[in-house]
Amino acid sequence: MLRTQFEEDLLKLHNQFYEMGMMVSDAIHKSVRAFTKHDKELAKEVVKDDVNINDMEIKLEKKSFEMIALQQPVTTDLRMIITIMKASSDLERMGDHAVSIAKATIRVKGQTRIPEIEKEITAMSDYVKEMVDAVLNAYIKEDAKAAREIAKKDEEINAHFNKIYADTIDYMKADPETIVSGNDYLHVASFLERIGDYVTNICEWIVYLSTGKITELNTNHSMDQIS
Amino acid sequence: MLRTQFEEDLLKLHNQFYEMGMMVSDAIHKSVRAFTKHDKELAKEVVKDDVNINDMEIKLEKKSFEMIALQQPVTTDLRMIITIMKASSDLERMGDHAVSIAKATIRVKGQTRIPEIEKEITAMSDYVKEMVDAVLNAYIKEDAKAAREIAKKDEEINAHFNKIYADTIDYMKADPETIVSGNDYLHVASFLERIGDYVTNICEWIVYLSTGKITELNTNHSMDQIS
Repeated sequence: MLRTQFEEDLLKLHNQFYEMGMMVSDAIHKSVRAFTKHDKELAKEVVKDDVNINDMEIKLEKKSFEMIALQQPVTTDLRMIITIMKASSDLERMGDHAVSIAKATIRVKGQTRIPEIEKEITAMSDYVKEMVDAVLNAYIKEDAKAAREIAKKDEEINAHFNKIYADTIDYMKADPETIVSGNDYLHVASFLERIGDYVTNICEWIVYLSTGKITELNTNHSMDQIS
Repeated sequence: MLRTQFEEDLLKLHNQFYEMGMMVSDAIHKSVRAFTKHDKELAKEVVKDDVNINDMEIKLEKKSFEMIALQQPVTTDLRMIITIMKASSDLERMGDHAVSIAKATIRVKGQTRIPEIEKEITAMSDYVKEMVDAVLNAYIKEDAKAAREIAKKDEEINAHFNKIYADTIDYMKADPETIVSGNDYLHVASFLERIGDYVTNICEWIVYLSTGKITELNTNHSMDQIS
């Protein structure tokens, strides 16, 4: 089948969005590895590479606007473009959080560390990375059912966060020498938690893509922290 | 002049976006006041009212998609719809951060507090609120020049954050009883800092709205925290 120019453009947009997602997944993985392995060079790499993620977002936005303006797509084609337009902002912010984690790596050096907490952060980040990769897969398959399942996993992320929070505060109280790194642990954990929220946003866009319905999959994120 | 249905719709969309912005500005103001005045009831109000902000975002999205699909707007009309589509996500997240601040209020009760830091947070939040109100004004006037000026103020926000960070760590080291509230202060300050980043995003959309150009007004946000 010969594709029209529009179909070519749409396929390219789709592939670039996925590529951007892989870049972000990679950035999250690298930033947490840098943080837990105390690898300053790797952290700098994440900061440097974020430019490419930002460039990709701008490229996707420009192309989306152009396609809407010039080709006036309707129904499912328009839905795909809108999904990419909206979800690319979520990806971009996930990338920003990876940068923040990388910066914490650079800052934390030389402080008294808490290996137990670093282990918990690694476990949390493995879980987050799985979610990120799963959501990219669900996007490729336009699988609304998978997207709904992935969004539910955000509760697990919150549980990780709450445990890290409680444990870190205990360490900080017991030894003031751990206050600076303890604060960084809490920041990194909260960045990971927020990455989980962005994954949920993307899940909502996948549901929209495949059903045309705008839904909220997770209205009470972090609500458990209220009491 | 008699307006067409499309013009009516666009005006309504525009007004609802501004209204959403005012709701968010109000939420930020209230959440910080609740936090610094230890006002649990006000904090709960912010959490409750966030539903309205989320509903407004969904309403704006639905209407935007519908207008693009059915009326196939071009040039400046399309630009306005795209701006609202993208910037409403930024507003919604600013609202989420206000909720996070409100939740910190509810959590911090009963802990040893640091009045000096609370004063710094109030000053920072006054500054953030000014930025939020200014960006809504710039939006109404489609004033790209003002938007560029507002984005520059983000540096000042980062300076506030860095001071609060350094001072809070000092207090936490000196008195472990302040560790829980100190950590909340740092969280609230980081939420305010991020609200500043979202304001910058909206500034970028205002520049797009009035010039058609996608720009990055602030690529190195929080870069000062790297060293």
